[in-house]
Amino acid sequence: MSASADVVSAPYEAPAGLAGVSVARTKVSDVLGRQGFYHYRGYNAVDIARRGRVEDAWHLLLRGELPTPQQRVAFASEAAGWRQLPDGVAELLPAIARQSPPGSLASLRTAISLAAQALGCRPWTDQPEEETAAQAARLSALMPVLAAALFRLASGLDMIQPRADLGYSENYLYMITGQEPDDRSRYAVERYLMLTIDHGFNNSTFTSRVIASSGADLGAVVSGALGALSGPFHGGAPARVFDMLDSIGSPDNAEPWLRRAIEDGDKLMGFGHRIYKTVDPRSQLLHEVARELHSDRVEFSEIVEKTAVELLAELKPGRELYANVEFYAGVVLEAAGLPREMFSATFACSRIIGWMANVLEQIDDNRIFRPLAHYDGPEAPREFPAAWQPGQP
Amino acid sequence: MSASADVVSAPYEAPAGLAGVSVARTKVSDVLGRQGFYHYRGYNAVDIARRGRVEDAWHLLLRGELPTPQQRVAFASEAAGWRQLPDGVAELLPAIARQSPPGSLASLRTAISLAAQALGCRPWTDQPEEETAAQAARLSALMPVLAAALFRLASGLDMIQPRADLGYSENYLYMITGQEPDDRSRYAVERYLMLTIDHGFNNSTFTSRVIASSGADLGAVVSGALGALSGPFHGGAPARVFDMLDSIGSPDNAEPWLRRAIEDGDKLMGFGHRIYKTVDPRSQLLHEVARELHSDRVEFSEIVEKTAVELLAELKPGRELYANVEFYAGVVLEAAGLPREMFSATFACSRIIGWMANVLEQIDDNRIFRPLAHYDGPEAPREFPAAWQPGQP
Repeated sequence: MSASADVVSAPYEAPAGLAGVSVARTKVSDVLGRQGFYHYRGYNAVDIARRGRVEDAWHLLLRGELPTPQQRVAFASEAAGWRQLPDGVAELLPAIARQSPPGSLASLRTAISLAAQALGCRPWTDQPEEETAAQAARLSALMPVLAAALFRLASGLDMIQPRADLGYSENYLYMITGQEPDDRSRYAVERYLMLTIDHGFNNSTFTSRVIASSGADLGAVVSGALGALSGPFHGGAPARVFDMLDSIGSPDNAEPWLRRAIEDGDKLMGFGHRIYKTVDPRSQLLHEVARELHSDRVEFSEIVEKTAVELLAELKPGRELYANVEFYAGVVLEAAGLPREMFSATFACSRIIGWMANVLEQIDDNRIFRPLAHYDGPEAPREFPAAWQPGQP
Repeated sequence: MSASADVVSAPYEAPAGLAGVSVARTKVSDVLGRQGFYHYRGYNAVDIARRGRVEDAWHLLLRGELPTPQQRVAFASEAAGWRQLPDGVAELLPAIARQSPPGSLASLRTAISLAAQALGCRPWTDQPEEETAAQAARLSALMPVLAAALFRLASGLDMIQPRADLGYSENYLYMITGQEPDDRSRYAVERYLMLTIDHGFNNSTFTSRVIASSGADLGAVVSGALGALSGPFHGGAPARVFDMLDSIGSPDNAEPWLRRAIEDGDKLMGFGHRIYKTVDPRSQLLHEVARELHSDRVEFSEIVEKTAVELLAELKPGRELYANVEFYAGVVLEAAGLPREMFSATFACSRIIGWMANVLEQIDDNRIFRPLAHYDGPEAPREFPAAWQPGQP
């Protein structure tokens, strides 16, 4: 079907937010909303998260397959080398960090954009595909380095250099806290990271494809996708779940607080998902991990979850609202030693791996995203108003 | 129609690049591809460009109407004040400029992201709408200031402070060259700027809406949209038209060069458009402006245009490929004294006005863009390969 034919005949008018519209083909991941199942390249993502390390999932997304033992060792060692900041970036981080609060995705956006410049990212149309793939890997590895550095600098601390002898997750926690994490914390954060690498055409992944489709460099892609992730309706949610828990305060208050919120039409943070109409499988594993961490907050969160799901079923029947990935994410990340301000930035560290896999696929068979809009303003052409007297142009 | 119904029934599978799909309603602008007509809020955009100044079109897009004479004066004076860089930005520009060549949209992306931090842009969900509108205006005014400053710094020159006593276009040329432009140059650049403010749901405008729909701050929106604009299939084209003209070299060579390129399947820069299937009305006015400038390049460009259109009709019958906005844009901008490296950045300066109008409309009746994809990889769930031995998670 030719584009011109579409323009002349009435165009298809998509539902708001492109809900239910499939906008591209992909081999990267899929989410089966009714089954409560999602996968990375066909493999059950929750099982990968149970059994593997970030490097396993990253290898699968970037290279197309789960690694053999030899590939696993080689990839982990290569990936550790990617953590080195390119020249000209570290010097600017204090001034960038100063402009926004600790954990801000806005300073991370500025910093990753600068890092991409320093890596020499050019439009993918103008460089060999291997170079684009190499930059995708570098930027993915730099995201946690920049996130940790900016957090510390904005908190009045010095940046900690990444260590090449640590795995992805240990190194991440080390760069934030300055201490090698215990196994339990590392395990917990790593489950979260692996579960959130990719998840269909969520808003930031879609953004990364839309930008890449113009031929833009990966710095443009990553800063745009990170911007999308920073929105409260997307990656900004886990910290807001905590704000809700704080606001509820005590188990006794859960029922009245939640009932009032739902009746007032407030959106409950951490519940409901565009695609899942059952329990979010990411939430299930995170709940398990949270229990193993024995944090005080777990029991309280469980009461809030149970109460909210019951109330939502009662007050919004048929809407099928369940706990989503954000609900237990914060509990897990906090119990593992991550400050609340770093929840969204931690999400960015894993999700960039998904963005990059999507973009490398997009550019392999690209067509620029250039949709239409339905104009519904005053009929055109309008007469110019008499009051407009522009004078000399 | 509920999203869950879509997920269970077969989702609508959109054509690649969302061609022919209307993704939202708008009152900002429209492009009628068959008629070769486009408008801003119902008013013929080419007529506005013929008669007005940037401030007129900007007022129309941002405030919803063409200004009365009093509004015109007040808006121009207010807009001149918006040019002042917020604290903490100017100091970093030399280091940002150093990372990329003069005119690079990558350094502009980093700088506008930083400026948005310095303006204190927060998610639009978390601040009054007037604050978001005020930030939209500030960022629009800062884009040319940053573009000019980075260009000069990357070229080894000092930044020139904006002047509040000059109009938008005079000030832009002044900040780049250090001299008040003559009336002809100013007139030419201003026509280009006014013609390119908005144009339906092009790739960067769509990007700005997708990012804004997550609730993200305007810094996220602008850096993402600017990234989209930097792609060679979008805002990167005008300079590439020049590369093509250089490569053709002489009038005699136009026919054989273009014939060979078309026969080899190369895409001719400056010809064809997803929406226009006739002459691009922006190209027509720019062609007129180019003629008035009497540049050497105009005559040569005309020969190339005529030859290309004839050859495209002969070799690609039915494709309806005509000169688009990029074709004469470069000729006009160069004759007005803008270096070739600045063509894309100049486009960003006008288009941000369109992005901001679209985003302010989007957030007024928002639903997050969260489409679906059609998974066509190996059937899931796949068995884990025996070669994957992750060991301790």
